[in-house]
Amino acid sequence: IVKRGVTRVITPSTVLNDQAIDPSRHNYLAALCAEGDEVAIVLWDLSTASVKVIASSCDRYRDDLARYPVAECIAAEEFFSPIAELTESPAEIPGHFDHFPPAQSRALALARHYLSTTQFRTIEPTEIERITDQPLLLMDHSTCRNLELLTNMNGGNDHTLLWVLDRTQTAMGGRLLRDWIRHPLFDRHSIERRLEAVELLVGNYALTGTLRDILKGICDLERTINRIALEQHRPRDLVNLRQSLHQVMQLREHGEFLQEAPLLSELFASLADFQELIDYLAHAISDEPSATIKGGQVIRNGFDETLDRLRGARGNARDQILHMEADEKSQTGIPSLKIRYNKVFGYYIEVPKTHQHRVPQHYIRKQTLVNAERFVTEPIKELESLILEAEEQLQPHEEMLYSQVCSYALQWMELIVSSARAVAQVDVLSCFAQISVGSHYNRPHIDDDTRLEFSELRHPVIECIQSEPFIANDLQLDTKQQQLMIITGPNMAGKSTYMRQSALAVIMAQMGCFVPATKAHIGLCDRIFTRVGASDNLAEGKSTFMVEMSETAFILQHATRHSLIVIDEVGRGTSTFDGISIAWSVAEHLSGQGPIGARTLFATHFHELTDLEQEVEGVFNCHILISEKQGQLHFLRKVAPGCAPKSYGIEVARLAQLPQSVIERAYEILSNLEAREYSAEGRSAVVHSQDPPYLFGPLDDPAVE
Amino acid sequence: IVKRGVTRVITPSTVLNDQAIDPSRHNYLAALCAEGDEVAIVLWDLSTASVKVIASSCDRYRDDLARYPVAECIAAEEFFSPIAELTESPAEIPGHFDHFPPAQSRALALARHYLSTTQFRTIEPTEIERITDQPLLLMDHSTCRNLELLTNMNGGNDHTLLWVLDRTQTAMGGRLLRDWIRHPLFDRHSIERRLEAVELLVGNYALTGTLRDILKGICDLERTINRIALEQHRPRDLVNLRQSLHQVMQLREHGEFLQEAPLLSELFASLADFQELIDYLAHAISDEPSATIKGGQVIRNGFDETLDRLRGARGNARDQILHMEADEKSQTGIPSLKIRYNKVFGYYIEVPKTHQHRVPQHYIRKQTLVNAERFVTEPIKELESLILEAEEQLQPHEEMLYSQVCSYALQWMELIVSSARAVAQVDVLSCFAQISVGSHYNRPHIDDDTRLEFSELRHPVIECIQSEPFIANDLQLDTKQQQLMIITGPNMAGKSTYMRQSALAVIMAQMGCFVPATKAHIGLCDRIFTRVGASDNLAEGKSTFMVEMSETAFILQHATRHSLIVIDEVGRGTSTFDGISIAWSVAEHLSGQGPIGARTLFATHFHELTDLEQEVEGVFNCHILISEKQGQLHFLRKVAPGCAPKSYGIEVARLAQLPQSVIERAYEILSNLEAREYSAEGRSAVVHSQDPPYLFGPLDDPAVE
Repeated sequence: IVKRGVTRVITPSTVLNDQAIDPSRHNYLAALCAEGDEVAIVLWDLSTASVKVIASSCDRYRDDLARYPVAECIAAEEFFSPIAELTESPAEIPGHFDHFPPAQSRALALARHYLSTTQFRTIEPTEIERITDQPLLLMDHSTCRNLELLTNMNGGNDHTLLWVLDRTQTAMGGRLLRDWIRHPLFDRHSIERRLEAVELLVGNYALTGTLRDILKGICDLERTINRIALEQHRPRDLVNLRQSLHQVMQLREHGEFLQEAPLLSELFASLADFQELIDYLAHAISDEPSATIKGGQVIRNGFDETLDRLRGARGNARDQILHMEADEKSQTGIPSLKIRYNKVFGYYIEVPKTHQHRVPQHYIRKQTLVNAERFVTEPIKELESLILEAEEQLQPHEEMLYSQVCSYALQWMELIVSSARAVAQVDVLSCFAQISVGSHYNRPHIDDDTRLEFSELRHPVIECIQSEPFIANDLQLDTKQQQLMIITGPNMAGKSTYMRQSALAVIMAQMGCFVPATKAHIGLCDRIFTRVGASDNLAEGKSTFMVEMSETAFILQHATRHSLIVIDEVGRGTSTFDGISIAWSVAEHLSGQGPIGARTLFATHFHELTDLEQEVEGVFNCHILISEKQGQLHFLRKVAPGCAPKSYGIEVARLAQLPQSVIERAYEILSNLEAREYSAEGRSAVVHSQDPPYLFGPLDDPAVE
Repeated sequence: IVKRGVTRVITPSTVLNDQAIDPSRHNYLAALCAEGDEVAIVLWDLSTASVKVIASSCDRYRDDLARYPVAECIAAEEFFSPIAELTESPAEIPGHFDHFPPAQSRALALARHYLSTTQFRTIEPTEIERITDQPLLLMDHSTCRNLELLTNMNGGNDHTLLWVLDRTQTAMGGRLLRDWIRHPLFDRHSIERRLEAVELLVGNYALTGTLRDILKGICDLERTINRIALEQHRPRDLVNLRQSLHQVMQLREHGEFLQEAPLLSELFASLADFQELIDYLAHAISDEPSATIKGGQVIRNGFDETLDRLRGARGNARDQILHMEADEKSQTGIPSLKIRYNKVFGYYIEVPKTHQHRVPQHYIRKQTLVNAERFVTEPIKELESLILEAEEQLQPHEEMLYSQVCSYALQWMELIVSSARAVAQVDVLSCFAQISVGSHYNRPHIDDDTRLEFSELRHPVIECIQSEPFIANDLQLDTKQQQLMIITGPNMAGKSTYMRQSALAVIMAQMGCFVPATKAHIGLCDRIFTRVGASDNLAEGKSTFMVEMSETAFILQHATRHSLIVIDEVGRGTSTFDGISIAWSVAEHLSGQGPIGARTLFATHFHELTDLEQEVEGVFNCHILISEKQGQLHFLRKVAPGCAPKSYGIEVARLAQLPQSVIERAYEILSNLEAREYSAEGRSAVVHSQDPPYLFGPLDDPAVE
């Protein structure tokens, strides 16, 4: 009789099945509690035992949550927003997380209670990482989307920064890379430690290759040991564990040659010595265990005397039965006699009907088929009993041994988890080294100043996907003479690419990765803001322009002197004069003359804004070069000082195959616009060239007063 | 011994499992073949046996494909684009589809070959629908996206037209509604037939409610009968089939009261009489069959004598064994004696160790447990043999009967499929009736002219999701006096909503649905075009402006005098003068003065374009009313003739919480812009009010010449 009952509740964050959760990302349960304005977020990945606590606040917690792959969110009663999914309040566990501030300790208790309830066992965190005061380069959710860090604009995974950088060899490394991209550092010392490590790996490129080969053989150690701890593993996991730990030992040996970079030497030093566990597992578990312990082929012969004895007895009896076939054949003279086994009758002798007359007396009839009869004999029945008895003892005994082996392996859990995390870092750093060599990235110079300087900078993603060679560009920004760059130039010339590649290079550098430039000086950025594109959201009642303005307002409210701001058009969705006024006023506010003075890249189609260069110190103009040969537009993709002479909008429209007559008429109107005037209300004097003068324009035109 | 072998290949279009494919949409295999410029598309839904042939062309086939839910696409060698997945060329089947043009017959053969190969059986189409010459209202893929017909801007399913309209009760109805939304008609007669049917159903609303209750009980008939045909069904499918056919019969009876609308009377007439099949299935299949035929509880007692006899024999023997328990207890005097069954030993008698001394001689020991012994007796063994023998015959016999039943049901397949399609139409029409009553929609007047007139038109989706009451608006468009409406007004005022609701109402009317307006006159539209929003696609090397221009070019190339065009801003992503020139020239091209003269809604922030009203016949201005009370902006959402007095862009920026200082400065700049002038190159004279005059502007200003 099988005992039935609920033994586990599976929810989005408590799935542990490897097929169901993506190995390349964490699968967090988020628990939220608030005390006054303070919000504590606990992120708990049951599958890797990674637990993080974030001290957040009412207005920031949604952004903080968005930075992590959260599969499920539970919240205390004080939350009632649609993201919150309420659960029963946990019984107070006094003293359990008392060393955390009240909100955090409640959030930890909430997560622990939820996981323990679903798992039907007490779940304890092995290690809790506090995210509170780590200095990070912050990016809001829309900036991540705009820069296509982890997903592209269509929500897919290709053509993103992650897609370019991810050459990691292990699942742990893949998850860590994702985390590093989403959370670049803002602390020179930590960044330099990573860059140093990457440089050493680049300098020892052959050795790096060997390391990467070794890494390839390491399974998802974090999730494997966790499955064992939560008793949701299969025997195969123990074999993977042994093989992977063997690779970890190999990694450890090779680490001796990479002691010059402190980060690497610390990482290699934190890889534990697993020889004892490896030997034990090799001795205990067979190389090709059955899929489950019930399969009975898990514990290796020679590990346990009793097990060997029982298996021997069963095997012997089986062999004896099978050898009987030849004996019975010769004794009865029935050449087609067979000894077979099935689940219903056990072992039996089958004799075709044609030979029934030769069946001996001592055969006991069991079943009659159309063409044959089936029999047993006393010796067969005795041997079968022996087999059944052995099997009855074998299974529980093997299960007991198996659980002993697992318990022993779990004594190593803390060492395995900490080694797995070191492996992840080695993996990501060596991945950086590999891509730096392969794609010609260079080590950036990191500084605490506010200077940003790139020579021959490329866009890491676009250079990979376009077929023609990528045209590199320089960039110089600071918070003094070159603080706000106004970029003009026709569409399709490459303004967006230029601005985004600059932001991406800063992110890469502050992750500790080399950058796609021949030279780079990075004065550290505390935040990166972008205002790029936009579409409306009628269901939420927001027009395109409203979305644009909200994003701009967010930047003006949050940017500091250490931020990097990328604005790709602002003020488009309204009338021309309103748009210019807003764009101009925003640019002034961002400039050194205003309260912020952050490094800013500001692309615009309002050529009026290029006048700011003369008005405000630190504002300067750049444009993207175009050549026009025989009426054909050539995009040179090169950034140069000064403002664009023309905007070529109509030429681009021609490229987009607007009918020839429409293009010609547009040019005619343009020349009228340029030749005549705007009236007082911003109304144009657009008429046919041959037409009488504008109907009412000049009459109330203050310019002729 | 189980015979193993590949019996089926499962691919995206050949999955039949109900859990794996969405019941609400078709799951098409598309097969493409080309002959010269002609491209034939075959759409074949294996799960519903729906087969369509489309005569398309090289430049149109991608758009045609996008109109249907295609799960998988195969193409002949002449295609080599990434959407094509090559398969082995089918052996030529001469004469098979010879009555189709060459490309179509090849595409049909290709699809048939592919499906037959994956299913390991010959698959033949039951009925082939030719899409060639059906007059439809065409919409390109981006128009469907912009109008949020089937998916919203974020790719989700809520807040779409489908989401509002889908009150269908059956899976077939759900699929058909999707198809009708994507393919409104362009043929007055067919539209009127549907509208008439809806009107009759609205007029008999109580009866409609009854019909909908009956429809609710109809399972996915198309997929059910197909699973049976492809031998991938479960016994439960036959029960569902019977119950659903019973509902179809009910529907048929009620149809008698709805004869006035020709479409409905045809539909009800095409529901077949299934009484014979229903009775047969009721007799043959038990009401709660086991999950598979192996479970042995599928064929009902009384259907087949042999089956009843075998079941009786087995049941008898089982009863006898179980009754033995009492006998053996009293004979042996062992009160705790039990008769039990397990898979290894069959039936046995279990006696606790404490009673071993009372075990009679004739008990044969089978197994020893810790606390008990297990025995058999000769009578038990004999009865067990009887059971086993009966079971050995039972299963194949029941399987044979089952396959007879299925064969009989399949003789009805054609009738079931055609009735299912009629059910789908009744379902969608009654869904239209229900939503028309519930949401106060009215029957539109359909005409072949080019007039479009709505009184108090609402947006069907937004009126459902916003909490405040929706403000309805009128619209009048034709191809003469009121041909091109230039709409101005601030952001957030409701321009996009107004334009989209007009397009949606046309689509709804041409689907045969009532519309959310008190009165509607629809001069039929052959195509609807939209140019709304846009975001760039750097990976494809397209800027926002380029995307905008390409979409505009597409409209200018394809629109006819019968089209409806919705343009929400054009010319934004370039310099002001370029943008105005392009917008102006595009408007002229679309106007009656140009070659197209289609009904056009043209929203713009270039107030300059309102001058077109005086220049070009048929162009007229509208704007959306705003009230300003005590410096507060109130959106009145009411459309009125004339152009907007101000654009209020800066006010909207204030609503978006741009800092107060930025807003004030923007107003200052705006007043300068309005007070002064644009220079010859479109450069503004933006300076501080107190500042000296603009440096070089007035000098070369032709206005002062």
